[in-house]
Amino acid sequence: MQDLRYFRNAYLEIGNFILNALNVIRIEDVAAFVDLLVNTYRSEKKVLVVGAGRSGLVGRAFAMRLMHLGFRSYVLGETITPSVGENDVVVAISGSGTTTMVVAAAEAAKKMKAKVVAITSYRDSPLASYADIVVQVPGRTKVAKMDDYFARQILGLHEPLAPLGTLFEDTAMVMLDAVIAELMYRLGKTEEDVKSRHANIEVL
Amino acid sequence: MQDLRYFRNAYLEIGNFILNALNVIRIEDVAAFVDLLVNTYRSEKKVLVVGAGRSGLVGRAFAMRLMHLGFRSYVLGETITPSVGENDVVVAISGSGTTTMVVAAAEAAKKMKAKVVAITSYRDSPLASYADIVVQVPGRTKVAKMDDYFARQILGLHEPLAPLGTLFEDTAMVMLDAVIAELMYRLGKTEEDVKSRHANIEVL
Amino acid sequence: MQDLRYFRNAYLEIGNFILNALNVIRIEDVAAFVDLLVNTYRSEKKVLVVGAGRSGLVGRAFAMRLMHLGFRSYVLGETITPSVGENDVVVAISGSGTTTMVVAAAEAAKKMKAKVVAITSYRDSPLASYADIVVQVPGRTKVAKMDDYFARQILGLHEPLAPLGTLFEDTAMVMLDAVIAELMYRLGKTEEDVKSRHANIEVL
Amino acid sequence: MQDLRYFRNAYLEIGNFILNALNVIRIEDVAAFVDLLVNTYRSEKKVLVVGAGRSGLVGRAFAMRLMHLGFRSYVLGETITPSVGENDVVVAISGSGTTTMVVAAAEAAKKMKAKVVAITSYRDSPLASYADIVVQVPGRTKVAKMDDYFARQILGLHEPLAPLGTLFEDTAMVMLDAVIAELMYRLGKTEEDVKSRHANIEVL
Repeated sequence: MQDLRYFRNAYLEIGNFILNALNVIRIEDVAAFVDLLVNTYRSEKKVLVVGAGRSGLVGRAFAMRLMHLGFRSYVLGETITPSVGENDVVVAISGSGTTTMVVAAAEAAKKMKAKVVAITSYRDSPLASYADIVVQVPGRTKVAKMDDYFARQILGLHEPLAPLGTLFEDTAMVMLDAVIAELMYRLGKTEEDVKSRHANIEVL
Repeated sequence: MQDLRYFRNAYLEIGNFILNALNVIRIEDVAAFVDLLVNTYRSEKKVLVVGAGRSGLVGRAFAMRLMHLGFRSYVLGETITPSVGENDVVVAISGSGTTTMVVAAAEAAKKMKAKVVAITSYRDSPLASYADIVVQVPGRTKVAKMDDYFARQILGLHEPLAPLGTLFEDTAMVMLDAVIAELMYRLGKTEEDVKSRHANIEVL
Repeated sequence: MQDLRYFRNAYLEIGNFILNALNVIRIEDVAAFVDLLVNTYRSEKKVLVVGAGRSGLVGRAFAMRLMHLGFRSYVLGETITPSVGENDVVVAISGSGTTTMVVAAAEAAKKMKAKVVAITSYRDSPLASYADIVVQVPGRTKVAKMDDYFARQILGLHEPLAPLGTLFEDTAMVMLDAVIAELMYRLGKTEEDVKSRHANIEVL
Repeated sequence: MQDLRYFRNAYLEIGNFILNALNVIRIEDVAAFVDLLVNTYRSEKKVLVVGAGRSGLVGRAFAMRLMHLGFRSYVLGETITPSVGENDVVVAISGSGTTTMVVAAAEAAKKMKAKVVAITSYRDSPLASYADIVVQVPGRTKVAKMDDYFARQILGLHEPLAPLGTLFEDTAMVMLDAVIAELMYRLGKTEEDVKSRHANIEVL
C-alpha cells in the first residue's frame, strides 16, 4: 500500500502552521475586531463579508455563523446584498492584501463610512491601508513568500506542500471560528441559539 | 485588556482537534480516494462536489483546487453543473451523513453509475450507505455527539467551544487540502501549474 | 449577410408568448399572491425564494427586487439563508412542478407552517399540492408539452424554438417584475426607495 | 376584487418593450456575436459570462444554456472559474455600461487577448470601449433615462412602471434566449442535445 507521504506531510504542515500561527496573531487586533462585532450586533448594524476565491469561501463560512448568532450578516456577490452605510462593518479577506476587487470593495466601503476590517498576511498591503482594524494572519500568498526567518524559524515551514494561499485560508478559517466562540461568550449565546437560526430547509 | 480566553481556547481546541484527527483518519480510505481521483483525472471524467451549508463551502474550496490541477470539477448548485454519468465521481460532504439533499444527490449519482465518495463522521450513516469510498473525518455534528471516550481521551475534547459542525468542517478542509498535495505529487503538478489555471480575472 | 431567421423567430415567439400569457394568468391568483406579500412586508416576516436551474435564477432576480423594496427576502442555497417558521413565505418556482428539490423544500416549508406560493405551469403538480397559492404561468416544460389546443390556438405556438423551460422562465421573469410594480404601488414605494437599497458596493 | 392595474400595466409595458426592442437591436451586431460564438464552440475555446446584480443573473441563465449546447461556458464569481486567454470570449452585461466590476473585468479580459462582447444600452459607455462586439439592448438604466423621443415614440414608453434596469434585464434575457435558438440551428443541435447535458442531479 502507498504510504501517502505527501498527504501526511501536508496535513501535518497545515495543522502545525495553524497551531503556531496563534503565537503570531496579535491578540489586541482580535480584541478590537471582537469589540467592533459586539457593538455592531447591539446596534443592529450590518456586517458584509468580502473575499475572492477560497478566501471568499472562508468568509462565507464566517458570515453563516454570524447569521446563526443573530447578526445581520451578508456576503458580497450573493443575491441578497444590501447597501452599506455609516457604522456598518465590512470584513475584507485577502492573504496578499492586493486582490483587486477586494481592495476596491474596501475603498468603496470606506467612502460609505463603513468600518473596514482587513484579514490579511500583510499589514502594509493596499487592503490594510483602507482598514480600521487589521487582523494579520500568516500564510504564504500568491504575491510573495513570507520572510524566510519568520517562515522557517517561527512557523517551522520547510518545503511547502500547500500551494498558493492554502495556509492563509485554512488558518483564517480556524481564527474566524475562534472569533465565533468568543462572540458566543460575549453575547451570551448557546449552541441551542445557533441551532435555532440554522437553516431548517437545508439544500446546497 | 481582555484576555480573549474563549478565542484562545477555541483556537487551540480546533487546532489540536485537526492535528489529532490525523491519527483516526484511516489512511487506506484516503489512498482509495486519491487513486480514484488520479484515475478520474487520467480518464478526463468529471468530479462533482456536493455539500450543504459550511460543508458545501469546504467542498467548493476543494473543487476550486481540483480545477487548478486541471480536473473537470464542478459544484452542485452552481450555474455550470453538468450531467454526471458512468465513472464520473461525486464527492459528497456531510458531517452527520444525514443532510437530506446531500443524501438524495448521492443516491441519484449512484443511479447514474457515478462513483460516490462520502466525507462524513459516520460510517453507518445514510450518506455512507450510497458510497463506494467513505473517508471518515471526526467532528461533533448536529445529530449526535461523538462517542465520549473517543472525544475525550483520543481527541482531548472537553467543554466544546466550536458549535455544531465546526470541528468536522475545519478538519475536512485541512484533510482535503492534504489530498491536493498528494494529488500534486501523483500527477506531477507544480505550484506553477496551479497558478496558471488560477482565475486571472478574479472577483468575488 | 445572414438573415438570422431563427434568432428573429425565436425572439418573436418568446415576446408574443409573454404578451399572450397575460390572458391566461388568473388575476385572482396574482391578487392573492400580492396580498400575501403585502401582509408579509407589514408583519416583517421573511420571504424565501426557491428554484432550481434557470427558474432559480428568475427567483433570485425577484428576491433581489423584494430586498430593494425593503422585504426580508432570501434565496435558498445561498450562504445567508435563515430558518423559516410560521407565516414566513416560501415562493417555489418550477415550470413542471416536479423538480425534486423544490418540491422537497415546499413540503418542508409546509411543515414549518410557512405559507407556500407555487409558480408553475401545472396546477395539479406535486409542487402545487403543497401550495397555499398557485400562480399558474404557461410554458413548455421538461416533463410535458402544453395541451395542443392551448399551445397552438391561444398562445399561437408553432414549431417551438425555445428549448425546454425557456418560455416558462422568461414569462415568469416578466410576471414577477409586474408583481414588483404592483407591490411598489401598494406599499407606496418610489424608484428612489429601490435605488437607496440597491447594493452600493456592486460586484458580481 | 382588486383590479391589479399596476400589475397589468407593468406586464404590458415590459412585454411590449421587449417586442418593440427587436426593431432597434441591430441585426448585424447579433450576427457578429453569433459568428463569434460558433467559432468559439468549434475551436473549443471558453466563454466567460460577467455581470453584476440582475444582469449577472440574466448572464447565468445564458451561460447555463451555452453549457447545455456543449460550450465550455463559465460564470465569473462562481467557484469554478478558469483563467481566460487568447481567443476565449468574455460576454459582459451591464445596462448602463458603467458597472465598475464589469468594466474592470472587460478591461482585464482585453489584456489577456480574450474577445469581449458587451451587452449594454450604451454604445459609448466605458464597457463598450473595451468591446470587440457591442450588442445594444434598449432599457432604462440606473445612470440615465433613454432619450425621450426614442423612449416615447419608438418604444411607446410612458410613466415607467419597471424600476431601474428591469426593461434592460428582461429584454436581454429574451434576446440571449433567441441567440440560443440561432446557435442551435447553426450548430445542428436539437432539444434532445440540450436535455442530455441538462444537470441530472438538480438542486438549487
